Amino acid sequence: MNHVIAVDAMGGDNAPRAIVHASFNAARNGIPILLFGDIQLIEPLLDEFALKAHMQWRNLPITITHTTQIIAMGQEPSRTVVTKKDSSLVRAVQAVADGHASAVISAGNSGAAMVAGTFILGRLPGIDRPAIGEFIPTKKGSIFCMDLGVNTDCRTEFLEQFAYMGHAYVKIVKNITNPRIALLSNGAEDYKGSMAVKQTFDVLKNSPLNFVGNLESRDMFDDHADVLVCDGFVGNVLLKGIQGTVRAMTFWINEERKKSWVYSLGLFLSKGLFKNLRNTIDYSRMHGALLLGINHPLIIAHGNSNEISIEQSIIFAHQVAQQQLITQFNSELKKTLTTKQAAFEFVAAQKSTAMSDQAQL
Amino acid sequence: MNHVIAVDAMGGDNAPRAIVHASFNAARNGIPILLFGDIQLIEPLLDEFALKAHMQWRNLPITITHTTQIIAMGQEPSRTVVTKKDSSLVRAVQAVADGHASAVISAGNSGAAMVAGTFILGRLPGIDRPAIGEFIPTKKGSIFCMDLGVNTDCRTEFLEQFAYMGHAYVKIVKNITNPRIALLSNGAEDYKGSMAVKQTFDVLKNSPLNFVGNLESRDMFDDHADVLVCDGFVGNVLLKGIQGTVRAMTFWINEERKKSWVYSLGLFLSKGLFKNLRNTIDYSRMHGALLLGINHPLIIAHGNSNEISIEQSIIFAHQVAQQQLITQFNSELKKTLTTKQAAFEFVAAQKSTAMSDQAQL
Repeated sequence: MNHVIAVDAMGGDNAPRAIVHASFNAARNGIPILLFGDIQLIEPLLDEFALKAHMQWRNLPITITHTTQIIAMGQEPSRTVVTKKDSSLVRAVQAVADGHASAVISAGNSGAAMVAGTFILGRLPGIDRPAIGEFIPTKKGSIFCMDLGVNTDCRTEFLEQFAYMGHAYVKIVKNITNPRIALLSNGAEDYKGSMAVKQTFDVLKNSPLNFVGNLESRDMFDDHADVLVCDGFVGNVLLKGIQGTVRAMTFWINEERKKSWVYSLGLFLSKGLFKNLRNTIDYSRMHGALLLGINHPLIIAHGNSNEISIEQSIIFAHQVAQQQLITQFNSELKKTLTTKQAAFEFVAAQKSTAMSDQAQL
Repeated sequence: MNHVIAVDAMGGDNAPRAIVHASFNAARNGIPILLFGDIQLIEPLLDEFALKAHMQWRNLPITITHTTQIIAMGQEPSRTVVTKKDSSLVRAVQAVADGHASAVISAGNSGAAMVAGTFILGRLPGIDRPAIGEFIPTKKGSIFCMDLGVNTDCRTEFLEQFAYMGHAYVKIVKNITNPRIALLSNGAEDYKGSMAVKQTFDVLKNSPLNFVGNLESRDMFDDHADVLVCDGFVGNVLLKGIQGTVRAMTFWINEERKKSWVYSLGLFLSKGLFKNLRNTIDYSRMHGALLLGINHPLIIAHGNSNEISIEQSIIFAHQVAQQQLITQFNSELKKTLTTKQAAFEFVAAQKSTAMSDQAQL
């Protein structure tokens, strides 16, 4: 069965052009698309791409729904989602709630996408803040980092919930029975961290999760953990810091190369090596992140996504729908949170037994 | 004149061995050292290094002061500094306050070093939290990031003060008249950031500083700013994330190399290139960071410093003392904070004039 993907055509730095281009390409590969946005802008773009491809786009599985409002990048999420009922984002998300599409994608205001996802698609019980994560390549595989940007100021409960979501996601996706959960901190020692991190450390230490303690960003590539928990501000800074470092190193290598023809020859011979390396760590070709903690699949793409990464996001959304990943994830998460509740009640029962024992003495 | 450097021999993962070794080497190069720590451990180490070097260490400018207490890495800073008066850290810092040394170095508990520096050497007026910064190499030069670890939870005023300190430090050290100050955030747009970052944005925008707005970590290598302001938790995660990425890339390059002899040959030819590159970004050879915002030079070295980086720290401390860097910095900072006060009073005066004008209408 081919799942329909709802796409917010008006969100992101390169909207609507890159979004429409990606939707056109995805539809050509057989993925049915519901495009939400200004039809006056979308149709000419589709005409243009179809002309270049010597074809008719009206034969493709693309349906346009005209919307009259746009949520801009800087707008305050909660209020905007409530007031802009006919925005491309709200209508696209609504299409999933109404059963017209199986998943939705937006590269626009990520705060607004989170709010729309939370309120229109519904939050899972036990989750206060839905969050986004990504697998970052490590020396031996990858580590799932969460949150990466939608929750900038996090209380202990939020960080704790990210740990539970990371656990369930990695368990489902990588088929690891008991994923190792680490907390991103400014030192590996137990006592290191911001106030929220220190409190979360204590909570996770006493949880049923396989908590392996604090992890420094310096050691995150060394296979110490499967999940790295952090608040969205720190996670975003870290992810972009990694990207910046890769770019800077590439720049420095090129600068050094210019100093000697021997280096140039050497690097020419190892050109394929750098191409392989770039494929490992090139984030510009990566798809968006799945918002975890809600009832249906919503993918938040980077604001600066180009048509390649938007198309990757659409393909990813389609896979998520086909594999029923969110249904699996939600049921796994529910199970883990029940274990947590059971562990909590067990500890409480033990305490109460100990107290009544003491009272009897 | 040769300035005396006080060294906490007992602080750090590799103490006392690496610290004593570095002190021995520095003293051989003519830098007078006051070593604070357990004389029963220090003397045998000096004997060992001297024996290897076929010399007598008692001819070197090294003076040992025996101390009976040690501040461990995990101990709560404020209380420990107050109660452990005979610790190697407190005594070493006290030596500077008493005029026996010009600067002090510790690779131990950095929180305790900050507390000792603040209370024993004295905080500057207008600075609530002394902080540490480092120059991170960029494509065109370097960017001074502050704070990098001693202040994990920062209010707006602290971040604002880091901006003023960064301004004064870069002005003095790099001779830039009006350094560009940026705020580390999860997006370049004005409205991005955690709550503290957003508030700091507004404060810096209305300050006399050359504030260039928010900067993403992805773009920090691209010469957009001279100073990058962040809280110590985020700064520490970012700095260590950069280090981890460099290490991971080196690992991946080596793994790829093994796949083909052509790559191996290519990388062999460009070996010198990678050596140059490593010199640009190898943090393990870097000296510790100067604690800014106090009256005398205190250098906080990384906890895992080896004898090379400790020796670099001693040489750096000596340079700081010779150039009277802290005196220059403190006078520059005072000047900038006065400008801030004047700007603040000017705005207040304007507002009051406007109000009285309104009242007259």
